[in-house]
Order: sequence, then C-alpha cells, then structure tokens
Amino acid sequence: MKRLAILGSTGSIGKSTLSIVEQFPERYSVAALAAGRNVEGAFAQSLRWLPRVVSLATEDLAAELASRFRQAGVTGIETVHGTAGTIACATLPEADFVVSAIVGVAGLEATHAAILAGKPVGLANKECMVAAGEILTAAARERKVPILPIDSEHNAVHQCLRVGAHSEVKTIWLTASGGPFRQLALDQFESITPEQALKHPTWVMGRRITVDSATMLNKGLEIIEACRLFDVAPSQVRVTIHPQSTVHSLVEFVDGSILAQISITDMRLPILYALAWPERPASSLTFDLGALRHLEFEQPDFERFPCLRLAFEAAEKGGAHCIALNAADEVAVGAFLERRIPFTGIPRTIEKVLAATPEAHPATIAGVLASDRDARERARALLA
Amino acid sequence: MKRLAILGSTGSIGKSTLSIVEQFPERYSVAALAAGRNVEGAFAQSLRWLPRVVSLATEDLAAELASRFRQAGVTGIETVHGTAGTIACATLPEADFVVSAIVGVAGLEATHAAILAGKPVGLANKECMVAAGEILTAAARERKVPILPIDSEHNAVHQCLRVGAHSEVKTIWLTASGGPFRQLALDQFESITPEQALKHPTWVMGRRITVDSATMLNKGLEIIEACRLFDVAPSQVRVTIHPQSTVHSLVEFVDGSILAQISITDMRLPILYALAWPERPASSLTFDLGALRHLEFEQPDFERFPCLRLAFEAAEKGGAHCIALNAADEVAVGAFLERRIPFTGIPRTIEKVLAATPEAHPATIAGVLASDRDARERARALLA
Repeated sequence: MKRLAILGSTGSIGKSTLSIVEQFPERYSVAALAAGRNVEGAFAQSLRWLPRVVSLATEDLAAELASRFRQAGVTGIETVHGTAGTIACATLPEADFVVSAIVGVAGLEATHAAILAGKPVGLANKECMVAAGEILTAAARERKVPILPIDSEHNAVHQCLRVGAHSEVKTIWLTASGGPFRQLALDQFESITPEQALKHPTWVMGRRITVDSATMLNKGLEIIEACRLFDVAPSQVRVTIHPQSTVHSLVEFVDGSILAQISITDMRLPILYALAWPERPASSLTFDLGALRHLEFEQPDFERFPCLRLAFEAAEKGGAHCIALNAADEVAVGAFLERRIPFTGIPRTIEKVLAATPEAHPATIAGVLASDRDARERARALLA
Repeated sequence: MKRLAILGSTGSIGKSTLSIVEQFPERYSVAALAAGRNVEGAFAQSLRWLPRVVSLATEDLAAELASRFRQAGVTGIETVHGTAGTIACATLPEADFVVSAIVGVAGLEATHAAILAGKPVGLANKECMVAAGEILTAAARERKVPILPIDSEHNAVHQCLRVGAHSEVKTIWLTASGGPFRQLALDQFESITPEQALKHPTWVMGRRITVDSATMLNKGLEIIEACRLFDVAPSQVRVTIHPQSTVHSLVEFVDGSILAQISITDMRLPILYALAWPERPASSLTFDLGALRHLEFEQPDFERFPCLRLAFEAAEKGGAHCIALNAADEVAVGAFLERRIPFTGIPRTIEKVLAATPEAHPATIAGVLASDRDARERARALLA
C-alpha cells in the first residue's frame, strides 16, 4: 500500500490522482492533501479519503476547514497552511509518495523538501524542473529518490528510455500538437485574440498552459524539463509536431532504433504509471490500436513559434535564463489575456527579459525564487 | 570481442551480418561459416574473415573448397559438410554467438545444437520457431540461453518488451506491409500471377517469402513465432497493416501504454541489435524522424487473407499443425510459382493439409522433421 501526499489535490491532476486511488484501493491510500484556496473541495476530499493532514493556502482558510471538520464531527485530520503547511504534507513521515501538482513555482519548495525527505515524487509541475531542475535532480541523485514525470510527453520518454542505457540515447523527440495556429498565416499572428488562443485542439487544460500551447512556449518549457529530468543536452532534444497527440513522445538511440509511446490522451495514465512504477497495473485506460488509421508529423516552424527558439537558447544558458523564460512568459500571458499586449507580444516580452537577464545559476531554492521575482519585475516593468 | 558462427553466411542475412562485422571490427570476428552450396561465396568470405571452420552442403563441395584453399595457400581453415558440418559450426567451442540464418527447416538441427551447447542465438529463421518453437524455447530456458530475434517485427517486439514485465503484456501487435494485394478486388485474387506476387512494396526478399508476404502467410508464421519467442497465447497477438513498414511492431501493456519501435527498413539494424544486446552500439543506420510525415494503419481483412486465419488456428492447436502450416505453404507456393495452382490455391491447399493433420506435439527435433515430411507429402499428394 502506497500512502500518497497530493500537493494540488483539487486541481485537475490532483483529481485525476484521486480517481486512480479510487480505482486501486488495494494499492493506494491518501496521507496528505494540499488544496490551495479551495476549502469546499478540500473538505469533500477529506471526508472521502481521510488523510492525516490537509493544507490550505492561508491560516484563515485552514481555520475554516477545521471548523467544518468540527461541525461534521470529523476528528483526526490535522489542518495546516501556507508554504510550511504544504511542506508538512510533502514530508509527512506516513507518506510514501508525493504527487507534486501545484501549478507554478509555488510548489517548488515543497517538492524540494519531499526529495530531501527521501520521498519518491510524481512530478506534474513543469515549472519546478524549469526553474530549479539542477537543484532538484542533484538532490534526487544524492538521495537516490526517483522523480517520475506525470506530464504525458516526459512520461512517454521515461518509458521509452527503459529500452536502452543513458549513454545510448541520441535524441529525445517531444511531440507537440502544434496548437490552434499551426497552419495560420504568419501575418495573422499579430491579431490573435485570447478567445482564439484558449481553444486547444486535443487537451483541455488551464488558461496559461493553453496559451503556452498556442505559442509553443509550453513545449519550450518541456525541452528544458527534458534536459533536466533525463540529463541530456539541449542539442539532444527535438520537437516534432503531431496533431493527433497519439504518440506522446519518442526516444532515438545511437544504434538507430526509435521507441515511441502511444496511449489515450488521459492524464490518469501517466499518473498511474508514476504511482505504480516500476510496475504496470491493469487499467481500463486502453487505446484502440485496431481503430488507429493514420498519424501525421511535421517539423515545427521556428519563425511561426519563436518561443521554441527562445527556449532552446535559455536551455543552453541554463540557470537564471530558464527561470526568466518561465517567469516572463507567465507575466506576458497574463498581459495578453487582459488584452494589454498582442499574441506576438508574448515572445517579444520574453526575448527582452532574457536579453536583460544576467547569466547566473542559483544554487538554492531561495536563490531560484529571488531570480524568479527579478524576472517577473523586469517583465512587468517592460509591459507597464 | 564476440566470435560469431554464421549459419547461412552467403544468404542475405549472412551477408548483412558480415557487413556489421566489417563496421565493428573491435566487437566482432568470425569463427565459423556455413554456406550451403555456394563454394565461390564461401571461398571469398573465408579469405576475408579467416574463420576456423567452413561448412558446405555436401562432401564434394567441401572438398572443392579445401582444394581452392590449398591452391591459394590458405591454411588453418577446416572444411566440413552436411548437417553434421553445420552443427559443428553451431557448436564450435570458439564461437560465442550463433547467427541462425539458414532458410527453412534445414537450419533447425544446428540451431537446436547451438542452444544445447549454451550459445546465444540470433534467430533469422522463422521456420525454426514455427516448427520447433516449443523444443527450442524449452532448451533455451533450461540453459538460460538468450534467443534474439533478427526479423524486424520480433526484434521490435523484443525491444518494446523491455519497458515492462512479461505478466504486464496484453497484446503484441505485429505490423504487416499488407503486400501488393492489400487493395485488390477480391474477385481478382484467383488470377494473380507469380510475377504480380513477386513484387513486394517495401522489402526485397527471397521468392517464397515474397509470395508469403502477398498471401500474408508470412505474417501468420510470425504470429506463431511471436507466441513461441515471447511465451504468449495466440489471442495475445494481433496484426495491423502498416503499408510504410516504418513502425516495425508494437507491444500493448495492461495499463494501457503501447510501445512502438521505428527504424529504417534495413536488416542490419536488427542484426546489430541481436549481436550487441543488451548494448546498443552507435551506428549510421539512422531513421530521419524529422522527415517523417505520416503513418497509416488499417485492419487486416481475414477474407482477403485466409492464411492469417489459418495461422491463428494452427497457433491455437500448436505442434504438428504449426509444422504443417509451414510445410504445406512451402509446397503450395512452389506449385503456384510453377503455375500449377492459382494464388488462391495456396490457402486452399494449406487448409486441406491442416484438416488432415492429426493433433500431435513432437518432443524431439527428429519428430519435428518427420512431421514436416508427412505434411509435405500430404501437400504434394493433394497437388498431384
């Protein structure tokens, strides 16, 4: 029985994780939940899963939850709050596995703490790896803690890598849907609206990640994540556009063999893989290969998607440049969604922030967070 | 340094194996060659590779080769002949690895002898596994000898299987080009000529295997081979038609993940994989994934390809029925190429021979060979 600490339990990945726990009650139980600002969701999940600890964003919210527990006659569930609360969940002695699914750098400290505490981590938060990948992977190596990627691409890569040695990997090929503007005329990009950018052809996701998918900055973050997670150079990562999102990624080995992973587009599958690794429990998340008719691939156009180029440049420089790529994008996407800058303003903002970023490699999480704040301020100043 | 015994050295797989030895002189050398009736080829290969032993089909041919050696002043190469000669090559103490690439059941005894002698085998001869798979795999298990499949489909499966446990395999999906008659109207099948059947869309191969590819009996043999090699039930093997022959096969796991292997259509790649396993040496046999545009798949039509149905039926019964499937097909294809029966006469002949085959499971190679002779006689009698 694996007892899980789920950081971000009321988000999409958190809910999918709980649906896996529901399907495999003999394998998984819930030790801790961190649920941000969602008291109602945290209350309902607590009643269903009876964790030892629940964390919310603030002291007030935690007090509200504790009062709901008292009213309902629920005892034995501790309520905690803030970053310290999330860290308490991530390092709970009873927890055997931590699902890190808090969006953004907010989940960074807790993920780091989980690794330092020797907990295997299922990582759904790509910003963690982009901003602090060097620190997290060094800690994981030192403590021999596995980090299992939960996004579909890196999860696919993790699977494909099992057929060869690390030194035999030539290229990691990340697939990308290409987003809604894969075939739009270049001169139309300036006038793309938030409504257009928020339509994703295959996955239903949050607002920032959907816009990131349209600019392909999302894929850029995944390039950096792949370099960190799998210890490869940026030149060993490539992107291929695959509109069907059926092949989730591929790994090319030095002998010439390429391994690809195919499955349904359902996040429960990479979650199950991460939770159960190295085992594969039988699930109903099947892909009907007999009904597969055709798969298309095309080369990404770096002119159409300058964010891809910027991501490769940031990946080469590492450290503060990766932090700035992510931070500047989040600020720029916010400005785009508020109609303060055009769609093409997103890469322009990132490029300017990157150009103003001094080369640096923060060695601590505090240093990463300071670098992240600097980049956000720089982006906001640029957009003011 | 691995010293190879190559059974079938002057055939297509034998030559490709030697080209791998040529590319990796620090990894491989040649200990023994078995070359059938090709004195000229055996002589040239011997001069180049200086094996310890060379075997030819008959005493006369071996004597001719020995005389060529004397004339050329070559010493230290022993010439042997016949089945005993091939077995001597396969069991040579100096050989570390045996490439079994003699077509048909002729290579069976030597392959069995290699396994009994504890030699790892690279198996390019699918008839061995179809006719005597139960015996060969039992011997390999007992002696802990790896059998590395050299045909592209099973080699792909072998790679994909590395990402999970045997108990986690749900379905092995063999890809098939579908041959030249994938889209031909059903009422045209009766009048297919040998010339039409000998044109294969993607691979250049021998005559029988090209016709077998057109009837899909070839894929049928591979279904049986997969059951034996990977210890799965016939119901765990399926076929998907994939005209590009880019995906060489796939493995579906019980959790819902499917792994696929992609590479160029060049037999040197599965040969290198088998020779080097579990390592992957860097090679120039690369597939340009960046140039990949689309992959098509379709369901095989069992009415169009009755040989597939017959193969599944034979796989379920095992033993003598698998032997008869292969033997009857070889006789029927010969008759088709001599224009004595129509294309559709091939499955009709096999079906009749299978119907007349008593259920039996030969436990010795001699028993397999006797069963093979019986089936051939039955097929010949039917066609007389």
